[in-house]
Amino acid sequence: MSDVDRKTFLLGAAAAVTPAPPAPGPGAGLPPNVPDWMKTLGKGVDADPYGAPSAFEKDVVRRNVDWLTATTESSVSFTPIQDLDGIITPNGLCFVRHHGGAPTIDPAQHRLMIHGLVDRPLLLTVEEVKRFPSQSRIHFMECPANGGMEWRGAQMQGVQFTHGMIHCCEWTGVKLSVLMNEVGVKSNASWILAEGADAAAMTRSLPMAKARDDVFVAWSQNGERLRPENGYPLRLIVPGWQGNVNVKWLRRLKFGDGPWETREETSKYTELMPDGKARQFTWVNEAKSVITKPCPEKPIHGPGTYEVSGLAWSGRGKIARVDVSFDGGDNWQTAALAPPVLSKCLTRFRIPWTWNGRTAFLQSRAIDETGYVQPTLEQLRAVRGVNAIYNKNAIQTWRVNSDGTVDNVQIA
Amino acid sequence: MSDVDRKTFLLGAAAAVTPAPPAPGPGAGLPPNVPDWMKTLGKGVDADPYGAPSAFEKDVVRRNVDWLTATTESSVSFTPIQDLDGIITPNGLCFVRHHGGAPTIDPAQHRLMIHGLVDRPLLLTVEEVKRFPSQSRIHFMECPANGGMEWRGAQMQGVQFTHGMIHCCEWTGVKLSVLMNEVGVKSNASWILAEGADAAAMTRSLPMAKARDDVFVAWSQNGERLRPENGYPLRLIVPGWQGNVNVKWLRRLKFGDGPWETREETSKYTELMPDGKARQFTWVNEAKSVITKPCPEKPIHGPGTYEVSGLAWSGRGKIARVDVSFDGGDNWQTAALAPPVLSKCLTRFRIPWTWNGRTAFLQSRAIDETGYVQPTLEQLRAVRGVNAIYNKNAIQTWRVNSDGTVDNVQIA
Repeated sequence: MSDVDRKTFLLGAAAAVTPAPPAPGPGAGLPPNVPDWMKTLGKGVDADPYGAPSAFEKDVVRRNVDWLTATTESSVSFTPIQDLDGIITPNGLCFVRHHGGAPTIDPAQHRLMIHGLVDRPLLLTVEEVKRFPSQSRIHFMECPANGGMEWRGAQMQGVQFTHGMIHCCEWTGVKLSVLMNEVGVKSNASWILAEGADAAAMTRSLPMAKARDDVFVAWSQNGERLRPENGYPLRLIVPGWQGNVNVKWLRRLKFGDGPWETREETSKYTELMPDGKARQFTWVNEAKSVITKPCPEKPIHGPGTYEVSGLAWSGRGKIARVDVSFDGGDNWQTAALAPPVLSKCLTRFRIPWTWNGRTAFLQSRAIDETGYVQPTLEQLRAVRGVNAIYNKNAIQTWRVNSDGTVDNVQIA
Repeated sequence: MSDVDRKTFLLGAAAAVTPAPPAPGPGAGLPPNVPDWMKTLGKGVDADPYGAPSAFEKDVVRRNVDWLTATTESSVSFTPIQDLDGIITPNGLCFVRHHGGAPTIDPAQHRLMIHGLVDRPLLLTVEEVKRFPSQSRIHFMECPANGGMEWRGAQMQGVQFTHGMIHCCEWTGVKLSVLMNEVGVKSNASWILAEGADAAAMTRSLPMAKARDDVFVAWSQNGERLRPENGYPLRLIVPGWQGNVNVKWLRRLKFGDGPWETREETSKYTELMPDGKARQFTWVNEAKSVITKPCPEKPIHGPGTYEVSGLAWSGRGKIARVDVSFDGGDNWQTAALAPPVLSKCLTRFRIPWTWNGRTAFLQSRAIDETGYVQPTLEQLRAVRGVNAIYNKNAIQTWRVNSDGTVDNVQIA
């Protein structure tokens, strides 16, 4: 950035000091006083064999709301994306959506059955699944209900609740195509049923083309074994497709010649259109983005230059470009994309912004490598009406008020 | 892989079954019995606002040895790389090396001082540091003592102890060059002193060329704020350079016209050569690799085809190639590198191997984009003798015994 920009950044930063100053007095300037924690030995290397965040970060947690569902066993908790940097979501903060609660599974007793229209049905232990050739991929996962509470105009306050049904991890597992070759899938098989080992026996149908392309059975998440609430010991990973088809606690893959029309693809996870008909099998998470800095949870402090930053993603491939507007969509600037920009993966964007202290309307707009442009809510509603719950990928508007607070608003 | 390979994999997998079978009886085959955890509701989404691994993974932890140092406050614990997949190390398992224990730092009271040969010395709060333009990078970090116990021939049993002083995270922070422009570094400044806010006031000198290149001050690790034992709230990230110069709990950067010759770069972290002189400032982690599957902690079970997998890295850039030998270095095959292959980052390699049940000697050899080839221990000793502790990046040999157990051996 230019010298002028740099100076503005610094002046702004000085104005933004919110923490309490160090012990006052003549020594409060340079050099800093020696703090208490330098005067005694700290914790030994054996203090915490499996670490935890600082106690000062206790508010960086998943959150749920008590009015959304009847029970917490069939509900969702949200990732605190307002507190996260980069693209990786730490495992402890990955949003969860359960349909019958998270089971406690003994991996030695767990089995994966592969059957139906196959030559050689298999019943595999977890160790057997892990012995196949593996791959690792960094992919986002998003619940299609992410933001769905706003179709009709509700205004959730906080990006954790408007966009927090998303996470992004490095997954390791075996490609489904390898397992398919192993069992010898019959030529008339065209769909797969995936079933979870939870109390809901969560089931979804998947078409073979996707299964042969990039679907895999994962046992690892960000290096370590899957977390219990995210599918331990096995999970289906369906890159770029809505979270619920990435069946957790995977216990069964059945090959058939049509979709199973399960509860989760008839009564649920369909979209009621304006003509009264429902769209079914709308699996792909279309291109979407959101500014996470600033956001309602992260206000700004006085005029000056700030880094505006956020996340973009597309279930169809790589993010090609992210535009940002500071005036509600009248003018757009292209943000910098942080490498690596990976397919079906969160992409972090950043752009500097000098705020003059007046009300401003911040928006981001993702364009993916297919040329698809993230729509406005108005454009989405024109096609899909206001009865849908799922797949709301509209441009988000944050209103920065003159006092630096940030509100979730919808503008025409 | 070929059809033949696939069949061998499966047969091998069947032979490798170690877990207890499900409840016996006629129903033990297909389909699997409905397990107990499908018969009751699991945990709700509010059960664990900050998650934890499955209780069945309780042995996947950092470990330390009690004979290596006098106290745990100045010691090291090792990453369990034998249990990890992919390239990301989860924050809770990142190895730690302390010189005076891990301090418990209140981020509101922490300051970063930037002073010395500068026009405008600065004392910044953490919030002020976080306001600068940021970047995210995935980099490995390795202690130069990783494997150092083996210079003279000691044989640590287990890859956690031979190679576990390494981790790889996505770090987010501000480039040091941005901060340098901010303070106006004087033209005669050629070195920087970095100081930590621990009881050891850990200090290291860094040359300006590296500082201007890719060094940054990080506040985030794998999305969330740094862990306390890994530098919370601020850490210097010096990509590809040995862990201790990546000063944790960073409180001070002083610009000067020469190195400070601190304890950690004179008495420690130097290499005693055969002629009695010591090499100093050997910061770069040269290209290195190790097979993590199989390894002493992960034996194999009977003849058949296995995926052999491991990690490679170089402090000078990207990994260009990894070769694997199954006969102690007589013959080499090129392994597949898993994307993304990033600069100064762990790279996962994988290669299939059909084991005939006889004793075998497994090795991996990394070549980086500069053309540097990972040396044998013999080659290293010929140059550096056996008095060194640091920067042992020799090829590792695992002996697979006829019973499938794996030993750490050194072959001429």
